[in-house]
Amino acid sequence: MGLIVQKFGGTSVGTPDRIRQVAKRIAKKYSEGHPLVVVVSAMGHTTDELIELAQQVSDHPPHREMDMLLSAGERISMALLSMALGDLQVPAVSLTGSQSGIITDQSHRRARIRRILGDRIRSSLSDKKVVIVAGFQGVSETKEITTLGRGGSDTSAVALAVALRAERCDIFTDVNGVYSADPRVVKSAQLWKRIPHDLMVELATRGAGVLHPRCVELAKQNQVQLCVKNSLNLDESGGTTLIQRQSGDPKMKGMEEFGVVGVTSDKGKLLVRARLSRPSALEVIWSRSAQTHLGLIAPVFSGQDVSFYSDRDGEAEWRKILEELSTQGCLDSFEIVSDIVPLSVVGDRFSQDGRALYEMVKVLSEAQISVTSGASSALAVTLGVPIHQVDDAVRTLHAEFMEN
Amino acid sequence: MGLIVQKFGGTSVGTPDRIRQVAKRIAKKYSEGHPLVVVVSAMGHTTDELIELAQQVSDHPPHREMDMLLSAGERISMALLSMALGDLQVPAVSLTGSQSGIITDQSHRRARIRRILGDRIRSSLSDKKVVIVAGFQGVSETKEITTLGRGGSDTSAVALAVALRAERCDIFTDVNGVYSADPRVVKSAQLWKRIPHDLMVELATRGAGVLHPRCVELAKQNQVQLCVKNSLNLDESGGTTLIQRQSGDPKMKGMEEFGVVGVTSDKGKLLVRARLSRPSALEVIWSRSAQTHLGLIAPVFSGQDVSFYSDRDGEAEWRKILEELSTQGCLDSFEIVSDIVPLSVVGDRFSQDGRALYEMVKVLSEAQISVTSGASSALAVTLGVPIHQVDDAVRTLHAEFMEN
Repeated sequence: MGLIVQKFGGTSVGTPDRIRQVAKRIAKKYSEGHPLVVVVSAMGHTTDELIELAQQVSDHPPHREMDMLLSAGERISMALLSMALGDLQVPAVSLTGSQSGIITDQSHRRARIRRILGDRIRSSLSDKKVVIVAGFQGVSETKEITTLGRGGSDTSAVALAVALRAERCDIFTDVNGVYSADPRVVKSAQLWKRIPHDLMVELATRGAGVLHPRCVELAKQNQVQLCVKNSLNLDESGGTTLIQRQSGDPKMKGMEEFGVVGVTSDKGKLLVRARLSRPSALEVIWSRSAQTHLGLIAPVFSGQDVSFYSDRDGEAEWRKILEELSTQGCLDSFEIVSDIVPLSVVGDRFSQDGRALYEMVKVLSEAQISVTSGASSALAVTLGVPIHQVDDAVRTLHAEFMEN
Repeated sequence: MGLIVQKFGGTSVGTPDRIRQVAKRIAKKYSEGHPLVVVVSAMGHTTDELIELAQQVSDHPPHREMDMLLSAGERISMALLSMALGDLQVPAVSLTGSQSGIITDQSHRRARIRRILGDRIRSSLSDKKVVIVAGFQGVSETKEITTLGRGGSDTSAVALAVALRAERCDIFTDVNGVYSADPRVVKSAQLWKRIPHDLMVELATRGAGVLHPRCVELAKQNQVQLCVKNSLNLDESGGTTLIQRQSGDPKMKGMEEFGVVGVTSDKGKLLVRARLSRPSALEVIWSRSAQTHLGLIAPVFSGQDVSFYSDRDGEAEWRKILEELSTQGCLDSFEIVSDIVPLSVVGDRFSQDGRALYEMVKVLSEAQISVTSGASSALAVTLGVPIHQVDDAVRTLHAEFMEN
């Protein structure tokens, strides 16, 4: 039987009870004969607590030491899970990112995976052991411990699935799968049984919180089948979502009509706008984003004006960068607009003309929702709307495109 | 053996000699036992000549009559091809778009396919006949003859492949396949043996002339394998490109690095910019684009400013629309910038941060090429550059991303 990689997040291993429950689930899968690699995050809020601890100890903790500190979180959860499996007579071994050979670049706290050696994993698998791997962490070529930043554990799991040629990668989380909109906002949101990789990349990039775009892009590029499952729903009766290669259109109108799979917004983002006084400032802005790995979506510039959405918690960092540039005379002005957030409609076939954009702007204007900006690519239209109207806007667009 | 749809464009059937050559190629495939549906365009410049004829006859030829006129072009080529096949003892029958049951919407000259009935095709196939279908044309629900506009014949072929569940759709054209850049501009451009659907959609949308994005989107959505072949290269020794579902990254650096598959520009597009005095003008602009099927790419708006690229030959139509809007007091100003064209880099994984955008802007600025605007989506970065510098810009970016 094929190898399966299973990833359990912080909530799923948040308490001793839950760790025992996860162990039971793994034991069952193991008894079916599947070789298993299990990726775990740190328990519950461990990482946040460690960050707070560091801040209490030092005003400016060096990133290298932060990574050393944070990487302890997964050591705890994986050791505990290995013990729980031992109690169920399932042979298991826990391996750190470094022991697993997860090689990253040198960006502490936001490292990217370069490749995976995986020798110790393979040898433990051939000893019929369940291999528990610490998510979120790796080691650089210079043997420094690194952590992967946002979406790190999911990305560890997918990267392992790629390197080990797994049959599938299961991501256990606290929802049943991928919906056409956030079910807390839209009651009639529907769960997709299957969704193609490329549309899932767009949903994830534009705010669907269930998976991080990094891990979906990696899965897409390597054709890894991802399955989102609810770790609290043992019998999977509530459904799951399989993210896989395209297999026909989930919702097709005419052959050449566009089809929508989801409406998503991201209150964790804000809008950054600047007016350049020197063209070279543009390079500086992008290069700082690249160096710091500050995420940004829908970057646009035209003449002197540049705008993009970035993570709300990067606001201070952006403000520092933009103030520096202003002082150097590179910017005429800038603003960080914290009450405009991106709202996106994701689907196929948006590239041909302005129809999708037209229908969205029209429907929102009829609902008295103001739209400040917008841009369209082949798979998504992203609009800027006021944060206090964004839930209404999601409901309005979902009703228009998914319920009619 | 599986059904194959083969499409031959105007150049491939441009002369009686070439029609006989195409017939030989079809006869060979037929002798291998494949059921064949062959889609043909009008011979050579027939369509242009018919348009010119119409303009000599009438100042404002109605679109309905234009479609009636233009649809004669494929009747000629398909009848001739059917005769040539008959001479080779290959049983063949030609069918118009209407006889084939290609049902479209009612937009004359730019109709979109809604569905395909295909009963007569199926029955002729079961009589072991090669079925020759007129590309570029269909019939509306109200039984009016329509033509499909740009990319129409390729789209006919793919739609037939979908409806008939073909094994593959071969598109015969005058190049060997899909290159990493236009080989006339970049000598070291490489031919891709395989390329995934989604990246081909981006290349086609952004100027790679080999296929129209309409047909690639349709192929992608329905997982039709497309093969681009050179109709002048009988033994396929020069190579072909297979466009198919993703099967691993054609060019991967680190696991989480972006990978580029092509650099493309589009001198057939120009930049439209407008400043709105009323927000409702935005709706009007998009709705006119949707109604007229005027293609547009990379539409962006922010506050009062809106910009997009559109087809150069739609310039007069856009000017009319924008002048009307100005007269009505909806626009403060507009400009149609005919010397700025879009230049795009297509690949995977552009969505994570500003790195790709940064590297492109930097490399071009080092090469003294001015970049007036830019926008990035997951699969492509599109920049606006002066038309007289665009070939240099393509070479510069190709050297940076494809040759290093």
